[in-house]
Amino acid sequence: MGLIKSWVVSANSPDCDFPLNNLPYGVFDEGQGARMGVAIGDCVLDVAKVEHGLDAALFAKPEWNAVMAAGPQVWDALRSRLTELLSDETNRAAVEPHLVPLSDVTLKMPFTVSEFTDFYASKNHAFNVGTMFRGPENALPPNWLSIPIGYNGRASSVVVSGTDVRRPWGQLKGPNDELPRFAPCARFDLELEVGAIVGQPSSGMVSVDQAEKMIFGYVLLNDWSARDIQAWEYQPLGPFQAKATATTIGPWIVTRAALEPFRVPTPERERPLLPYLHEPGPMLYDIDLSVGLAPEGKGETIIARTNYSNMYYSAAQQLCHHTTSGCAMRVGDLLGSGTISGTDRDSRGSLLELSWGGREPITLQTGEKRSFLEDGDTLTLYGAAKGDGYRVGFGACTGKVLPAIEQPEWTKEQG
Amino acid sequence: MGLIKSWVVSANSPDCDFPLNNLPYGVFDEGQGARMGVAIGDCVLDVAKVEHGLDAALFAKPEWNAVMAAGPQVWDALRSRLTELLSDETNRAAVEPHLVPLSDVTLKMPFTVSEFTDFYASKNHAFNVGTMFRGPENALPPNWLSIPIGYNGRASSVVVSGTDVRRPWGQLKGPNDELPRFAPCARFDLELEVGAIVGQPSSGMVSVDQAEKMIFGYVLLNDWSARDIQAWEYQPLGPFQAKATATTIGPWIVTRAALEPFRVPTPERERPLLPYLHEPGPMLYDIDLSVGLAPEGKGETIIARTNYSNMYYSAAQQLCHHTTSGCAMRVGDLLGSGTISGTDRDSRGSLLELSWGGREPITLQTGEKRSFLEDGDTLTLYGAAKGDGYRVGFGACTGKVLPAIEQPEWTKEQG
Repeated sequence: MGLIKSWVVSANSPDCDFPLNNLPYGVFDEGQGARMGVAIGDCVLDVAKVEHGLDAALFAKPEWNAVMAAGPQVWDALRSRLTELLSDETNRAAVEPHLVPLSDVTLKMPFTVSEFTDFYASKNHAFNVGTMFRGPENALPPNWLSIPIGYNGRASSVVVSGTDVRRPWGQLKGPNDELPRFAPCARFDLELEVGAIVGQPSSGMVSVDQAEKMIFGYVLLNDWSARDIQAWEYQPLGPFQAKATATTIGPWIVTRAALEPFRVPTPERERPLLPYLHEPGPMLYDIDLSVGLAPEGKGETIIARTNYSNMYYSAAQQLCHHTTSGCAMRVGDLLGSGTISGTDRDSRGSLLELSWGGREPITLQTGEKRSFLEDGDTLTLYGAAKGDGYRVGFGACTGKVLPAIEQPEWTKEQG
Repeated sequence: MGLIKSWVVSANSPDCDFPLNNLPYGVFDEGQGARMGVAIGDCVLDVAKVEHGLDAALFAKPEWNAVMAAGPQVWDALRSRLTELLSDETNRAAVEPHLVPLSDVTLKMPFTVSEFTDFYASKNHAFNVGTMFRGPENALPPNWLSIPIGYNGRASSVVVSGTDVRRPWGQLKGPNDELPRFAPCARFDLELEVGAIVGQPSSGMVSVDQAEKMIFGYVLLNDWSARDIQAWEYQPLGPFQAKATATTIGPWIVTRAALEPFRVPTPERERPLLPYLHEPGPMLYDIDLSVGLAPEGKGETIIARTNYSNMYYSAAQQLCHHTTSGCAMRVGDLLGSGTISGTDRDSRGSLLELSWGGREPITLQTGEKRSFLEDGDTLTLYGAAKGDGYRVGFGACTGKVLPAIEQPEWTKEQG
């Protein structure tokens, strides 16, 4: 399939993230309150204002949750109608007044996150981290090849691209320290992930096939991580405050329908999966991903390039596993893929891996070195599936690291 | 302080869970839709129907979230007004028509859970579990005496007392098995906990003192746990599906105000806490807790008796720690205390501990033995703070174990 042409001329450029093939959903504000929008070329279309043919109540609140809850038939109808409106020149007069230049808007949270689960499903990432912590022989935990390992994250910490992220305080204990201290995180990191958004609820165990149909779309996701807090806190019950400062998601939900042409299979199984995790077909996507780091006031260096197809488990497999216990899933649940790393050194999706635990700092184009993030650094994730003469892009997912707050008096030793 | 007398005569009995000293909040339905209520004696008062003196919007939706969000002044005003209405005989004619016998109502979820965090803050429990898994020398994780360890749970799995709980399926692997299998949980367990409900939001680090003032009240909490699923899945990122089947909360929110006379200090610190975790005063409560187990169609045996004062960390300390990373807390967040165990054998808050990992089954009054829960078992938690001539009770928190569902076809080996 090639480019689907739009009368919005900017959408037809091969470098544009938002051709008619994409139609990602977001929420924008041009100064008159947040509204639901779809990106097309260099504009955003104010969806509620056009003849969408759907119940107006779906667009009453500036978030995509109601549309998601309405189900796949509505998802298909909306996509078809938007394609019609933006491809057929005869609709131009009615639709064009509701296009707003992207340069004039602020992008908001595209949906309300019900609950956030983060997985650990890229084998290279798990192997790299495991090697650093336990040596290459014991790198992969024994369950890793059988379970899409996940843990519950904190929905209240999910923010949209463009939100500043403040370096956290926390309990830190160096390997040679006898006792922990309370201090600002010194090993603040990013995690390059793709988030899957649950668009339909479930109340019991669902198959991989059913799970896939529940997924509304995908966003870029940066799961900011305080490695020093994590190292001290995570045994035995997993990461907690190390992952609770912020998780930044991209502003655009790229729908499953838009990604359909880019399906690829999960890799060879190194250990047979239990039958419940078998996939009926290819359920990953070929999406190029990269990470840019710009020190305060300076240019950006791309520090990592990888691909979503490096995942060992698909989002559908993760979601299926999530329901095995009977755990109810809800509209707006967000599932992070886990950090996505390739096999090459520059394909690693975190500074922990890129600098190998801080032992091999990376060098930026500015000549500066980085083991972990410094105050003022701006991190940006990019993602796009590449078609023949077009791309389905995710838009930038960005966040700037602000310095930790001044130490509150009540955290200091008294007397 | 002694009993505060009410013209609702049943509330004045020393054995009543709900004297005027208590005034716990819940949601009830007598067949005409859910409504907000306060328990008094053997009745529930339909709060919205009396002259409460507050904004009617606070009672528009059958959940206590709006009242919580309204803040401590409203909490105090409502409690004062209810005390006045139910103590002063002159209000009887106006109020009595809005009392409904508890025997006529079904109790519903008292509030909407925003997010659920479960802690691990009873030292005896952590020591018992650690001893079983790692031996007594390494029983307590190195961070345990410094951090109120917690992990994020799943809010969608929280249900109210009276909801049946279905035995989950999951990945299980015995210590001598080479590979896991997908099967119904064979080691299904309860966890006796007390849940603290966050009634006020925060957006940055809060002190223990501030944290305490954010807590609206407490409920009994049974964190059903699949021990065999947990054993195989929990490394390295913590419990996930093992804890996602259900968490049952009691129907009554006992407010912080009602528990005020029962404050007790946390125990001696075995390692000095970092200053941010210091408590300005006693922040635990003297609450007797017990667990009853009734096999299908048979009488109940009390299998454990313990006390909330066995906690090493208070809910205020847990909440403070929860915010150190900058993690935003929201109205309706629920913090489980973690399993509460005392030092005696019969004061252990889980079957894992009571049967010492299944090696020492307990004997019920019926003569039956239990290592873990069997289908048809009904578990009930009880809790009450005991005053001079009265008790502040939590009401029963109950749930019955149903058999696992039939194995779905798609989980079976094909061909």
